[in-house]
Amino acid sequence: MSGQPMADADFEARVRASFERQKAMKTLGAELTRVTPGTVEIEMPHNADFTQQHGFLHAGAISMALDSACGYAAYSLMPADAGVLTIEFKVNLLAPGRGERFLFRGSVTKPGRTIIVADGQAYAYDAEDNARLIATMTGTMMTIVGRQGIEG
Amino acid sequence: MSGQPMADADFEARVRASFERQKAMKTLGAELTRVTPGTVEIEMPHNADFTQQHGFLHAGAISMALDSACGYAAYSLMPADAGVLTIEFKVNLLAPGRGERFLFRGSVTKPGRTIIVADGQAYAYDAEDNARLIATMTGTMMTIVGRQGIEG
Amino acid sequence: MSGQPMADADFEARVRASFERQKAMKTLGAELTRVTPGTVEIEMPHNADFTQQHGFLHAGAISMALDSACGYAAYSLMPADAGVLTIEFKVNLLAPGRGERFLFRGSVTKPGRTIIVADGQAYAYDAEDNARLIATMTGTMMTIVGRQGIEG
Amino acid sequence: MSGQPMADADFEARVRASFERQKAMKTLGAELTRVTPGTVEIEMPHNADFTQQHGFLHAGAISMALDSACGYAAYSLMPADAGVLTIEFKVNLLAPGRGERFLFRGSVTKPGRTIIVADGQAYAYDAEDNARLIATMTGTMMTIVGRQGIEG
Repeated sequence: MSGQPMADADFEARVRASFERQKAMKTLGAELTRVTPGTVEIEMPHNADFTQQHGFLHAGAISMALDSACGYAAYSLMPADAGVLTIEFKVNLLAPGRGERFLFRGSVTKPGRTIIVADGQAYAYDAEDNARLIATMTGTMMTIVGRQGIEG
Repeated sequence: MSGQPMADADFEARVRASFERQKAMKTLGAELTRVTPGTVEIEMPHNADFTQQHGFLHAGAISMALDSACGYAAYSLMPADAGVLTIEFKVNLLAPGRGERFLFRGSVTKPGRTIIVADGQAYAYDAEDNARLIATMTGTMMTIVGRQGIEG
Repeated sequence: MSGQPMADADFEARVRASFERQKAMKTLGAELTRVTPGTVEIEMPHNADFTQQHGFLHAGAISMALDSACGYAAYSLMPADAGVLTIEFKVNLLAPGRGERFLFRGSVTKPGRTIIVADGQAYAYDAEDNARLIATMTGTMMTIVGRQGIEG
Repeated sequence: MSGQPMADADFEARVRASFERQKAMKTLGAELTRVTPGTVEIEMPHNADFTQQHGFLHAGAISMALDSACGYAAYSLMPADAGVLTIEFKVNLLAPGRGERFLFRGSVTKPGRTIIVADGQAYAYDAEDNARLIATMTGTMMTIVGRQGIEG
């Protein structure tokens, strides 16, 4: 991370409150397990409701969790009155989404006043708790201030 | 589309059968509404279970439907015994995912024996049925032949 | 293109003046051959100074021309006092960069006050002037106003 | 890096010989300064022939060096008779390309028989030799065996 990103005092409460409002995370069965300034982790058990045709976790479900992890990593460094929007992201699927549980990490690579770039990793854990990197994301996030309906 | 992509006679049945096996599409409430050689469309009504913190459709849900549309567009041009895997995709979010219903189109831009590149568009429709382009995807898909568990 | 993008009266002169300042375009041997509101074309003959190890045009040279085409497509819709910066782009290489000459087109997919998304296509022409799509780009461009050194 | 990537004994000689055939690297003024199994570094001084309109290193020149770094990182792990082709890459421009010299590093994130994913970083060094991360790349590379004209 370059520069001197400063999180406001309540960054964790802000991130957790916004995450709670993401119904998609509840539907996915995902939980926010770590929030530090510039890094967020989300975890979930395998969820058969989100499989693709071969029985693996759908690339879109992986993207959903990675986007939230990257978005909240960015949001953790934003001013208290800002909202976060994703401009774009790229996901590389490195291995099938097969596992007992999954961990998604988002970390800020480049903070900025308007644009924040975050990188993410998705890991699958097997029954013996061995981790395997299954996907990476690079996402570009935008700080939104003063736009009606875009708080948090 | 360059070259002369040829779909086998049963391409539509193959695509529909594989789509039916994607539990993620059922959970999302998405339906396969159009299958032609190299182009697939998926539609869904607004689904409050897949919203992000501002009440818009989550970027991950948009990606899930676009990835399926692009993947099946590619799969429609593959040999009957092949399976399709997504290598990577990029999504640009152009407008908030707000609408009564959504349409996701995937089209093959470049067919190939091993690698197929597909582009996708996501549209939101308001109550008066006006469409708005809300996202685009470029995805790289791979033809898998003879790998156990990767059929369809 | 969604919305009502308006180019200012001098958009073409602005684009051409900025292109002239890009020494990279001169080094590449590229010329600006078309400038309309939201679409820009750049052309160049094959240039042996920019080949990769197999004798094809280097993916980076293709990216250089596509980035300029997409960037100036965005810039053509910006206010007269703005500068343009590329936030990110993705390039898919669809066929080897082999040809007598090349055309690179950038078009605005989504205009916006701060963020503009543009898509690009690169074509190779053979000796009989048959075109072949060799690459596509999706790029995210940013309007910069009032930052010292970022004019044009 | 997951799995057990094995470089053949002559990986460095193969990489260096292929790099020498890239006329684009010579034109850019770039040198191969480090070759290990799965990681390659390329360095260059500032080159005024490759600037964009504000006098910074053109995003395409950054991409050219990053693509070569990522491509050769992948190639270093390929069999001796293979060739490497870039399928696609994404570049995020994090800071202006302003510096006395530049370093581009490519590292394999996920090796594979056919598809290799590599990530890259570009750094600018000022006159006091302070480094600044100016860009990142994620690239997807393909191993080509037995195709005429695609050796190295």
